[in-house]
Amino acid sequence: MPTLDHIESYRIRPNPNDPRLSRLIQGVNQYGQSTETSVIEERPLTIYLNAQEIVTAMTIGDYPEYLAVGFLKNQGMLKSDDVIEVVEYDEELEVVVVRTECESNYEEKLSKKTRTSGCAIGTVFGDMMEGVDQVKLAATPVHTSWIYHLSHLINRTPSLYLETGAIHGTILCEQDKPLVYMEDVGRHNAVDKISGWMHLEAVAPDNKIMYTTGRLTSEMVIKTALMEIPVLISRSGFTAWGVDIAKQVGLTLIGRMRGRKFICLSGEERLVFDTDPESVPEEDKKHRRKSAVDE
Amino acid sequence: MPTLDHIESYRIRPNPNDPRLSRLIQGVNQYGQSTETSVIEERPLTIYLNAQEIVTAMTIGDYPEYLAVGFLKNQGMLKSDDVIEVVEYDEELEVVVVRTECESNYEEKLSKKTRTSGCAIGTVFGDMMEGVDQVKLAATPVHTSWIYHLSHLINRTPSLYLETGAIHGTILCEQDKPLVYMEDVGRHNAVDKISGWMHLEAVAPDNKIMYTTGRLTSEMVIKTALMEIPVLISRSGFTAWGVDIAKQVGLTLIGRMRGRKFICLSGEERLVFDTDPESVPEEDKKHRRKSAVDE
Repeated sequence: MPTLDHIESYRIRPNPNDPRLSRLIQGVNQYGQSTETSVIEERPLTIYLNAQEIVTAMTIGDYPEYLAVGFLKNQGMLKSDDVIEVVEYDEELEVVVVRTECESNYEEKLSKKTRTSGCAIGTVFGDMMEGVDQVKLAATPVHTSWIYHLSHLINRTPSLYLETGAIHGTILCEQDKPLVYMEDVGRHNAVDKISGWMHLEAVAPDNKIMYTTGRLTSEMVIKTALMEIPVLISRSGFTAWGVDIAKQVGLTLIGRMRGRKFICLSGEERLVFDTDPESVPEEDKKHRRKSAVDE
Repeated sequence: MPTLDHIESYRIRPNPNDPRLSRLIQGVNQYGQSTETSVIEERPLTIYLNAQEIVTAMTIGDYPEYLAVGFLKNQGMLKSDDVIEVVEYDEELEVVVVRTECESNYEEKLSKKTRTSGCAIGTVFGDMMEGVDQVKLAATPVHTSWIYHLSHLINRTPSLYLETGAIHGTILCEQDKPLVYMEDVGRHNAVDKISGWMHLEAVAPDNKIMYTTGRLTSEMVIKTALMEIPVLISRSGFTAWGVDIAKQVGLTLIGRMRGRKFICLSGEERLVFDTDPESVPEEDKKHRRKSAVDE
């Protein structure tokens, strides 16, 4: 597999060799023979906003500061005008504390959130839809040559996904350049890390494209819209409500992006068809199989 | 594709032709041509326990009664000795109410749950681990011929998964027989529907096997253990903590089950190797691709 070290555009990329992120575990294979396999780590991270414990998330544990800030941002507990004084991470306690200049209305937010939160099964629907109507997404055009190029690069970027499977990736891109590639056990964590990075680095969303290995559910579409990113692309499929919300906010939603194939179910007016799909190679089996590991 | 109508063992199986569960949506393909694709529905369901609103879950909407009871059971809000008087579903209001004879301690539970709940991103870890130490799982043997047979049947059972992708399946099995095949947008919903069915039908867990299309995370392992099902099988991969917990409770954890291949990382003492893997056909590309849609 090409290491793609020539991709200069990455500001952050996966580090599949980080010993903290995966572990070799002994087991048996179908022949009853002892075998060793590389398995992704999963650990709790408790997020505080000032003195208030907000959530314990299961995460691979990289970029806890970005995850904390992005989670609070995406839950509406951090407003863009909230000034973050410091983000403190204690690796031993598995705790990250986000301190803001003046304490926000997160307590009211929290009580509201938890009324509708469903934890592993759940959703913050009641909370998340808030503000979606006000979202205005930029009319930035999207060349099909960019999305073919992105999909090609992302599929070949060395990652925990390719190493171990059982993990999701979310990649923030600009035109045909991947900028930040985050991975986590939950696809929402990966999105939140992107959001945290954008917030702390003050990165503008209007000319960005988000790529995810996860499914295009209502929650993914709502998060992308609230992050004001106008384009969301996935290898995976759609839900009908995800499509409905994307149409409502005018977000370009592209799914089942594999090799030369994709389907756009919302916001097709941004697409500029500058590539003959026949000139794009089909995905090889390796990538199909790898992706299949990560259901 | 064989319709497998000869599988007598199913008590509940997917109904991919149910018009309430998927919708044809118009879009454009990679050529800019108008195309129609079948997309899974996703709708909110608000679950009440007696007078208390507990959660709003995103679900495809089938079997709301099983989902509600299973969710409350798996969250520890319904104890096995709680007597359910009635489960009322209002399709128009998208509400399901579970009424118990005497009101349980769910309020205390709820306050505890929500402190650690992370909604889409999150976990009920603080709550879920409760009771795991007390779990005693049956030493029921598992023949490799059963799991090959199950995997073959399940992959070929007509389902929304095969029709539309972007959905997870969980199948309750006994020896080599699939009994209940539930699907949902979140893999936890599918597990909860199984749990609700088992609770309302008073089905014993000790000789059962659970198969999921989803990843073997800590939450999946904890739920399976709390349901007292001794064996969990997945097409997909593991997380290290999922494996740790499986070993701790003595649960047999089998992952990456594809064609003749699988890996067992916990509880291998239950396995009876009665099949030569060489005699098992490899999966054809179709199933690999289909599965890949559901990341």
